[in-house]
Amino acid sequence: MTAEIVAVGTELLLGDIVDTNSAELGKVLAEFGIDCHRRQTVGDNLARVSESIGLALSRSDIVLTIGGLGPTSDDLTRDGIAVAMGDTLIHDAAIEAELRSKLESRGVRFTDIQSRQAMRPISSRAIDNPNGTAPGLLCQKDGKTIIALPGPRLEFVPMVRGPVSEFFASLSNSKLVSRTLKIVGIGESLVERELADLMELSDPTVAPYAKTGEVHLRITSRVGVGTDASDSVASTEAVVRSRIAEFVYGADGETLESVVLSLLRSQGETFAVAESCTGGGLGGRVTSVPGSSDVFLGGVISYSNDLKVSLLGVSSDTLAAYGAVSEQCAREMAEGVRSRTGASLGVSITGIAGPDGGTVEKPVGLVYIGVSLGERTDVHRAVFHGGREGVRERSVQAALAHVWRRLR
Amino acid sequence: MTAEIVAVGTELLLGDIVDTNSAELGKVLAEFGIDCHRRQTVGDNLARVSESIGLALSRSDIVLTIGGLGPTSDDLTRDGIAVAMGDTLIHDAAIEAELRSKLESRGVRFTDIQSRQAMRPISSRAIDNPNGTAPGLLCQKDGKTIIALPGPRLEFVPMVRGPVSEFFASLSNSKLVSRTLKIVGIGESLVERELADLMELSDPTVAPYAKTGEVHLRITSRVGVGTDASDSVASTEAVVRSRIAEFVYGADGETLESVVLSLLRSQGETFAVAESCTGGGLGGRVTSVPGSSDVFLGGVISYSNDLKVSLLGVSSDTLAAYGAVSEQCAREMAEGVRSRTGASLGVSITGIAGPDGGTVEKPVGLVYIGVSLGERTDVHRAVFHGGREGVRERSVQAALAHVWRRLR
Repeated sequence: MTAEIVAVGTELLLGDIVDTNSAELGKVLAEFGIDCHRRQTVGDNLARVSESIGLALSRSDIVLTIGGLGPTSDDLTRDGIAVAMGDTLIHDAAIEAELRSKLESRGVRFTDIQSRQAMRPISSRAIDNPNGTAPGLLCQKDGKTIIALPGPRLEFVPMVRGPVSEFFASLSNSKLVSRTLKIVGIGESLVERELADLMELSDPTVAPYAKTGEVHLRITSRVGVGTDASDSVASTEAVVRSRIAEFVYGADGETLESVVLSLLRSQGETFAVAESCTGGGLGGRVTSVPGSSDVFLGGVISYSNDLKVSLLGVSSDTLAAYGAVSEQCAREMAEGVRSRTGASLGVSITGIAGPDGGTVEKPVGLVYIGVSLGERTDVHRAVFHGGREGVRERSVQAALAHVWRRLR
Repeated sequence: MTAEIVAVGTELLLGDIVDTNSAELGKVLAEFGIDCHRRQTVGDNLARVSESIGLALSRSDIVLTIGGLGPTSDDLTRDGIAVAMGDTLIHDAAIEAELRSKLESRGVRFTDIQSRQAMRPISSRAIDNPNGTAPGLLCQKDGKTIIALPGPRLEFVPMVRGPVSEFFASLSNSKLVSRTLKIVGIGESLVERELADLMELSDPTVAPYAKTGEVHLRITSRVGVGTDASDSVASTEAVVRSRIAEFVYGADGETLESVVLSLLRSQGETFAVAESCTGGGLGGRVTSVPGSSDVFLGGVISYSNDLKVSLLGVSSDTLAAYGAVSEQCAREMAEGVRSRTGASLGVSITGIAGPDGGTVEKPVGLVYIGVSLGERTDVHRAVFHGGREGVRERSVQAALAHVWRRLR
């Protein structure tokens, strides 16, 4: 069973909107074990819409269109489907009655323009859209299925999670079960080298995805509906963990910040940050986790050197002798934020985010990260790339990774 | 001149990641007046990658691939291009030398796996990638052009905005000239009402885009290379400004944070933040601007009540009487961060980001923002929606907007 998505809309091609709908639909197809090998995106042009749908029909069992079901003249998906299927477009009185009652209940007058939304290919039936006007369409002809979905997200998501998922369930006799391991401190190519044999398996499949400062490893198995696949996924996970245990920080919905907060909580620690080049980014990321307030106390954004001295107690001599971007300053910042806030763990970040301010000895991207806990303060040095944004993002990620390793 | 995008990656089809790169590339193509009528998305499968590139080559002048340039065995774009173009894949010693020096400078050992990234179709040349390992590729053969771009966003965006844009500029004989006005303090529908007549124009076109806490208004005109379109865009801009002047904070590449920093700089002010529910997000956003250090001193993340007292001097009586989320606390935080840092302008944010912690009197989303400058501290109250993330993002945006209005 293969499916193909045809996303319709000139605004998608122009980049005015990012296509989150196709990603959502891809997830749902994967859950039902329906292979989606291809996606097409076309603008609001009848020839190209019908050509794309026709191409998709020629190579896939199910074609899912997104968008182009509204009332205006550039909403062409209904017409495109009719052309591609060789089907007649008819006016459906029941759809129009439903449209009229919806519009009237909102105090909107029904016009000729809206009656376009009551047209459908003769081989189709409407899919109810409680969150908008235009219904979806389910068209079945010559062993092929086309499902037309509305573009607005608030209409699209409930239709996909509701009636369309029910339809998928009725077709599919298998589903995908997957587990994503989150890995930090080892790059994608080293992960691949350690797990090369696993990555050749066809079931479960094992695939790494590089993210900023971490790697996600997805283990996926396809299983019959009603059977239990957790065994093969779990046993593969165990093999992965036996080989790279020290780098696996979590799984699935866990994030580095949520895992760090959980460790702090379970170990009875509290935590504060002293940020220079990241300007609050570490605090911002930590506090994105609901409930972070029970372990995260806050901290100091010591962007200027004066504040490093006055709010964190970094010594002026240290700044004069070694500079703000130094092992010594990072150490005093991490220790200083502990003593000023009373937190049991202090993290500091000081570096040169660029684009200016680099020298031969201290290039753009040079960052020192301090982690102070108990009697010991560790300072880690790194040179990050990726421009100002990249250096700052990687600094925050590395700080969390160092805290995780220290607590684990 | 037509272009077609081929985005490569099983993770795109599975919905593990949303394809923001294609949207970004679509924007750049539109700016250069290059028509992009179609986009394809395929998984990491050599037959389908080469088939998609071949199909794109058959109907478009320029094919732009995104992703699949990494070192692992499922990075197949190089191979797919070679198959589709009927080209030989060769090992490029210069690319390998560059790869080795990049990896060595980061302390990473060069392995056989990485040498895949030094392969290229014989009709291609490398596009330098200062932000990652694999270079991009520019392949020209038989009157067609293929440009292969890396998938990671921090590598993709600079390559598209840099060398790829230069290449587009060399090809195009017409271009889109546009100006985007940035508007804060008035919603999209009010903007539309004020500018309804302008929005019916066909050249220049005028279109509003709703963003978080602001509206972007794009004025666009298509002109031949060498001619000057600035007149029609500029005169339309003047009309817009005459109607909604008090809400237009900037244009094009300017952001609310960059405009605020410029105003502070020109008025000789310095600035510090006291953040509670945003946890450092305001500082993080301000310091995303290069050169912010000359006016932004830093501040305090007072996530816990204790730190509001010890680091900002908020009175315990205030906290006991009114709570941390109150007009009084916001006022003392903004004034406190001024006196503790010596900044001439202090901004505070205290609120309930949720999902828990709301009450009938103080619901989730309630936020107080303090702006202290000279003799006066203003405190603004708002209730934001959009979940924890939305509340925090809108709080940062609103804080910047209040500072902008105060300084303007």
